[in-house]
Amino acid sequence: MQRGKFITLEGVEGVGKSTNLQFVTDWLREQGISFVQTREPGGTPLAEQLRELLLARREEAVDPTAELLMVFAARAQHLAQVIAPALARGDWVICDRFTDATYAYQGGGRGLDRALIAQLEQTVQGELRPDKVLLLDLDPEVGLSRAANTGAADRFESEQLAFFQRVRAAYCERAEAFPEGYAVIDAGVSLELVQQQLRRELEQLV
Amino acid sequence: MQRGKFITLEGVEGVGKSTNLQFVTDWLREQGISFVQTREPGGTPLAEQLRELLLARREEAVDPTAELLMVFAARAQHLAQVIAPALARGDWVICDRFTDATYAYQGGGRGLDRALIAQLEQTVQGELRPDKVLLLDLDPEVGLSRAANTGAADRFESEQLAFFQRVRAAYCERAEAFPEGYAVIDAGVSLELVQQQLRRELEQLV
Repeated sequence: MQRGKFITLEGVEGVGKSTNLQFVTDWLREQGISFVQTREPGGTPLAEQLRELLLARREEAVDPTAELLMVFAARAQHLAQVIAPALARGDWVICDRFTDATYAYQGGGRGLDRALIAQLEQTVQGELRPDKVLLLDLDPEVGLSRAANTGAADRFESEQLAFFQRVRAAYCERAEAFPEGYAVIDAGVSLELVQQQLRRELEQLV
Repeated sequence: MQRGKFITLEGVEGVGKSTNLQFVTDWLREQGISFVQTREPGGTPLAEQLRELLLARREEAVDPTAELLMVFAARAQHLAQVIAPALARGDWVICDRFTDATYAYQGGGRGLDRALIAQLEQTVQGELRPDKVLLLDLDPEVGLSRAANTGAADRFESEQLAFFQRVRAAYCERAEAFPEGYAVIDAGVSLELVQQQLRRELEQLV
């Protein structure tokens, strides 16, 4: 049995992740590829409860290390219950955000030590890494203005522009450091052009 | 300003932790020592929410590494919000369970690597360690029969005897490895004798 491919979709608020996730899963269905669509933080009942705790706006200042450990706790659960079994039985896994988001949000955004993130990544994932990270890249100023109308902001969405600029910069650093594992897709062009790029990346993975 | 003392109370189910915690705090009050009484996992609104997720019995098998990371996430939050500020302003902190419980329950009970626990301890606590761990030691078979009548069992309480025997063994290993930081108190004797031992340990800390 061949292990399935592990694809993650990444990007800051407003890059069009939902629309393009739909495009990716439609494409996989057309190809007759069996896949699991999931998200982080989340993907299991416990991990979704951790997501709620992470996103909730609260009076209490959340310690950045506590936030980081909650993210990796949810990931350990998600891997054990969903991702690893799916890949092992040959399904593809399409995940809305994964560890690159941790490097971007907790590393870039919150300023946590990248070496600590790498240590937790190793502890929780062992050798497992995405086969391809589809990074939808866009100026956060444009992204935030697109995302502004979609309901009450959660604890991350309520951050300031400078936070999202650090997040984007960290994503781009990761893509430069690991060019073979990343597809950086300009999300500032028309949806048709974005999806042309996505299709090309997916075709290379089959 | 002198830093306050950091005292933790440890032991398996049924050793009499609540009763003896009350004794410790009564004694501190008599001495006019200003203190904060708290517990783990918990001690802040977010950390208490993590406690609920940890204790809840669930259909889903909980990945041991996920459990460990949730425990340390709650600890990071508790340290930042409650323990470190209290010690810094000179208050004593009396905590119902702390990192020794992690070595005992997740290390001994679940069989997780002690080196991983030590790494997380260093990440979350830096150099902070309890000034004294008051370990109430008792044969788990006796402890569990004492604890049996106190309501519905949580996810830990519903473990089997062998689990608690591993927990106790791990506590005792810790006490042997760090004799200066531990007071091992035989909880199988009369309450009066237990509290004589507790008083002696407390007097040495003042």
